[in-house]
Amino acid sequence: MSEHSVENNRIILAGAGNLATCLGVALVRAGVTPVAVWSRSEASASALAEKLGCPYSTEITMLPDADIVITAVSDDALPHVAKQLTERYSNALLAHTAGSVTMDIWAEAGARRYGVFYPMQTFSKNKEVDFSHVGIFIEACAETVYPALEQLASKVSPMVYRATSRQRGYLHIAAVYACNFANAMYSMAHDILEKEGLPFEVMLPLIDETAAKLHHLSPEEAQTGPARRGDETIMRKQLAMLDGTKSEIYALVSSYIAEKAKNNKQL
Amino acid sequence: MSEHSVENNRIILAGAGNLATCLGVALVRAGVTPVAVWSRSEASASALAEKLGCPYSTEITMLPDADIVITAVSDDALPHVAKQLTERYSNALLAHTAGSVTMDIWAEAGARRYGVFYPMQTFSKNKEVDFSHVGIFIEACAETVYPALEQLASKVSPMVYRATSRQRGYLHIAAVYACNFANAMYSMAHDILEKEGLPFEVMLPLIDETAAKLHHLSPEEAQTGPARRGDETIMRKQLAMLDGTKSEIYALVSSYIAEKAKNNKQL
Repeated sequence: MSEHSVENNRIILAGAGNLATCLGVALVRAGVTPVAVWSRSEASASALAEKLGCPYSTEITMLPDADIVITAVSDDALPHVAKQLTERYSNALLAHTAGSVTMDIWAEAGARRYGVFYPMQTFSKNKEVDFSHVGIFIEACAETVYPALEQLASKVSPMVYRATSRQRGYLHIAAVYACNFANAMYSMAHDILEKEGLPFEVMLPLIDETAAKLHHLSPEEAQTGPARRGDETIMRKQLAMLDGTKSEIYALVSSYIAEKAKNNKQL
Repeated sequence: MSEHSVENNRIILAGAGNLATCLGVALVRAGVTPVAVWSRSEASASALAEKLGCPYSTEITMLPDADIVITAVSDDALPHVAKQLTERYSNALLAHTAGSVTMDIWAEAGARRYGVFYPMQTFSKNKEVDFSHVGIFIEACAETVYPALEQLASKVSPMVYRATSRQRGYLHIAAVYACNFANAMYSMAHDILEKEGLPFEVMLPLIDETAAKLHHLSPEEAQTGPARRGDETIMRKQLAMLDGTKSEIYALVSSYIAEKAKNNKQL
């Protein structure tokens, strides 16, 4: 098989959700327009294809040939999609984008050339993501397969790393805390303010600064607040003003912070 | 009593911790250098006074006269400090900076002119804060007392609001979630990565984007991740990779996110 430069690689995006949309836009910007979008939802597939200026199909048999297929489908759908792709694209390089799915899923589906292309970022359909700030974690079935995925990743981001399936599993868990759970904390702040008729916007400078601090300090150095100071009086007062899941979370996270602060002092 | 412009107000900072330091630096920048720093710790007081180019003392009787005294001391120390200040500065405007302490503390101490000057931000000694991005919440004992505090606040930030003691209590709780608890989530991500020998830096683009999204989407719209999608398979897998407080927090925060997503669908 002859080697193509990445510009000549025919790429298919399998999936048309948040990640497929953001990745597709970044690829087009980088001059690598996919040859097609494949999704089981006609509406999503056509919307994304229109955005990218490329064809789409809901039928795998109708798709053009490809060199690389990137799947961005739900983890539950992945085993079946992997089987379909392995049959249709037996010579292509098949890669999935899931943090918590091991690379083995491709071997189990019978694929010959495969890997993982995991962009660690939070993707929402209504918010465009600058891929140049997205770390992309690559895994490949063989040393010779890395370059094609690494070159493709390098087209959209300067931050391309190799990571094993185990490392990616922990990266994904860390991302759940640093992104999904941090956002849940914002959501609780939002609820608390809304109940008192206060606008959430007043929180934005604080939220921005809390994130910005980490470019200079470790999370432990950056930690502030009643639990960090061991201020039992305020913690009791605040707990009494909360109820339900929020108060359980208040108690549990405060005990984590206090415990951490204690361990640091002992070091 | 004659009215001064804020430039002519003689300001004393009571306290020399993170907040006093950041506020002091911002005041000096704005051309309002305090006439003195007062702190019971000689080391902290002298360090801050040197930074600000002003005198300091650990003895309240040695302090110069003042028009406004801003306290930035721990909540536990505040009642005693308030009593001392009320005796020494019976004619000055006395204001504290605590989110969760009501304004009444000054009346209880016997003060005549008093209020609250609450900058809602996270202050660490080693990280300078740009006060122009800090919302400052003002409360005063009388309508005539507001202008002096509002003018002082306006010197360091364009975001100056009035808030009652009750509102400030909830603002503080919201800040605990959006800042202190969000940072605890970063800290857990840090621990998880460190255990696997992965650098925390790879998280920064994700953390930045998670915060930046809130300038365009509400926290509920911005929510992503396994719990938001209801992906039980991944949640079980990730829970099995965690232990201790982290796994309890994983379960509890995930159930909050899932519940929230369910309620939204029903609306």
